Amino acid sequence: MPPSPIRKLVPFAEAAKARGTKVIHLNIGQPDIASPAVALDAIRKLDRTVIEYSHSAGYESYRKGLARYYKGVGIDVTHEQILVTNGGSEALLFGMMACFEPGDEIIIPEPFYANYNSFALAAGITVVPLRTVIEDDFSLPPISAFEKLITPRTKGILICNPGNPTGRIYGREELERLRDIVKKHDLFLFADEVYREFCYDGAEHISAMSLDGIDQQVVLIDSVSKRYSMCGARVGALLTRNEELYDAVLRFAQARLSPPTLGQIASEAALATPATYFTDVIDEYKERRDTLVNGLNGIKDVTCPIPNGAFYCIAELPIDDSDRFCQWLLESFSLDGHTVMMAPATGFYAEPATGLKQVRLAYVLKKDLLERAVRIVEAGLAAYPR
Amino acid sequence: MPPSPIRKLVPFAEAAKARGTKVIHLNIGQPDIASPAVALDAIRKLDRTVIEYSHSAGYESYRKGLARYYKGVGIDVTHEQILVTNGGSEALLFGMMACFEPGDEIIIPEPFYANYNSFALAAGITVVPLRTVIEDDFSLPPISAFEKLITPRTKGILICNPGNPTGRIYGREELERLRDIVKKHDLFLFADEVYREFCYDGAEHISAMSLDGIDQQVVLIDSVSKRYSMCGARVGALLTRNEELYDAVLRFAQARLSPPTLGQIASEAALATPATYFTDVIDEYKERRDTLVNGLNGIKDVTCPIPNGAFYCIAELPIDDSDRFCQWLLESFSLDGHTVMMAPATGFYAEPATGLKQVRLAYVLKKDLLERAVRIVEAGLAAYPR
Repeated sequence: MPPSPIRKLVPFAEAAKARGTKVIHLNIGQPDIASPAVALDAIRKLDRTVIEYSHSAGYESYRKGLARYYKGVGIDVTHEQILVTNGGSEALLFGMMACFEPGDEIIIPEPFYANYNSFALAAGITVVPLRTVIEDDFSLPPISAFEKLITPRTKGILICNPGNPTGRIYGREELERLRDIVKKHDLFLFADEVYREFCYDGAEHISAMSLDGIDQQVVLIDSVSKRYSMCGARVGALLTRNEELYDAVLRFAQARLSPPTLGQIASEAALATPATYFTDVIDEYKERRDTLVNGLNGIKDVTCPIPNGAFYCIAELPIDDSDRFCQWLLESFSLDGHTVMMAPATGFYAEPATGLKQVRLAYVLKKDLLERAVRIVEAGLAAYPR
Repeated sequence: MPPSPIRKLVPFAEAAKARGTKVIHLNIGQPDIASPAVALDAIRKLDRTVIEYSHSAGYESYRKGLARYYKGVGIDVTHEQILVTNGGSEALLFGMMACFEPGDEIIIPEPFYANYNSFALAAGITVVPLRTVIEDDFSLPPISAFEKLITPRTKGILICNPGNPTGRIYGREELERLRDIVKKHDLFLFADEVYREFCYDGAEHISAMSLDGIDQQVVLIDSVSKRYSMCGARVGALLTRNEELYDAVLRFAQARLSPPTLGQIASEAALATPATYFTDVIDEYKERRDTLVNGLNGIKDVTCPIPNGAFYCIAELPIDDSDRFCQWLLESFSLDGHTVMMAPATGFYAEPATGLKQVRLAYVLKKDLLERAVRIVEAGLAAYPR
């Protein structure tokens, strides 16, 4: 497994910090938003004396609470269709290991979350990328584009909705297109919906679990990491209405015994997070998005579509090698003692030398830092030796 | 992955409870011992507002603390040779994925912890069991027995020391024998030492990491689950002095982002657990072991070697199918409203129809429950329709 373009930049960021340059991290999705008070309180009031294993599928009380939460967002599942995992990461890995055989192929619209490659590699399956383009706001290609990629080894499609790294939210028409392909070719549809809550400008999130006619084929990947700003809880979930698949996933879960107990306690308590927490957080992110995206679009020759979901955007810059530009910003540039770390978009494309003009930016920092970041990118682009 | 013999018993245990029979669980290693107060206190005093990701290899402060802990038990490693994992389970899985190619073989003395099979399956490697026998206290076979099993695909040996399910602690002579084989055949030596603290009767635990001449080949698997009775923290560790291997494991760790933050906070605090905690716990386990093992040996035709490590023992009973006997105890037997659930030893042998006369018992319950359990086993054996 080669290091990702972001990982390759880490030593340069460390070196910049060692030189006294402050690095504004636009490269990672670690929000600075406080976790819900109810979750932190539950941890502080821990009333047990043994930190024991939970059920391998997660505490039943938590799964029952989750089922109510899902009902509230239009996803009808029972607690026996929910399996609690070590973050969304493990849900993906177990789902892939349970659904596919080594050598099977999974189609993923690209650019996509780089770690999908790692889980596919661990499960021995082949990722087949399907290009989506910035000019078209990363919308889902037509059925014909999927069908060109389908082989006898194709066993699934994986989407991230709302999308990391694109911020794209798929509309009903796009999802029904997916549903039709999945149904026609008898595929699994993996839907990573960990950014479900992060929709802006009135955009509606439609879950793959609400699509008709593919009940047995949808595998939903979820996590509390982003929803409650609890990335370190390492609590995710896999949802499936397919009993046989659930049992197969449960076997993997039993082998690793238990998801984290303390994270589950926090996550169960977080189910009672008041609605105002989310309206505040969404308002905050929307303002951050506008600050960053409008700022970027104000720079000469920079294009950044306005995403309406998640908390990432992809910008196209007047450069020809984003790995090099991002490294140069860390290695050789600063403005008033600050520089920025961005994720070269090359890491989100399966094909080499793709996304060379693009970077991904996470708007998980405060507005004034984002404003400063925009000024640094602008000055950096002007000073960059081409 | 077929369900293990223990899993198959779960519905029978549930049914027994539903009938009002109390089930004494000798089948699992979930101790009833309280987690250290310092660990629980650290959780209750949580002073952060965001439950963030940690470094993918674990908090540096925790790894530095761990390095000091290891030095104290005779294992000389730096914090850069320690990678914090989601329990010992993930350490095993990542270690196997990083060291081996699909189709490689790993020799494991059997009976062995059943989940080794699951991790090997997930990593695509083949488990080659090497039989050890109850008559010889499950001691390690001679070099010739290993060499009979070594093929060009053999890439590693995995031991559990102190042993689950046997309670065996390997002596220096046995470990040096292993060292010689590993060195001669250029193998990896995986050493699962999660029961390190649980040694009785003055037995000394010698870590595989202290063996000379195989520095680059030893992969140590560790966990806080048993040491601090914190199974639900899901915090383990992989130790290796092999830089290339460390980097490979780190890639897998980066894909899953972070080990659990809250579990790490508890685990870092637990490093300050006073020595008296362990002397009390060891005294308690020793008394439990004596209660259970002496009780079992007092039953007609029952043999149970006295283990000097971990908190399991294997007993040989006058039966011919331990799966059936264990099921019968749950389904059809009770004494004063109680029955016992034991683990059929068949699940710990790779070869089918092995261990048919044996059961594994965990002595993680209070003495009076163990005494009652012995009476139930005795009465059950007398009443069992053969």
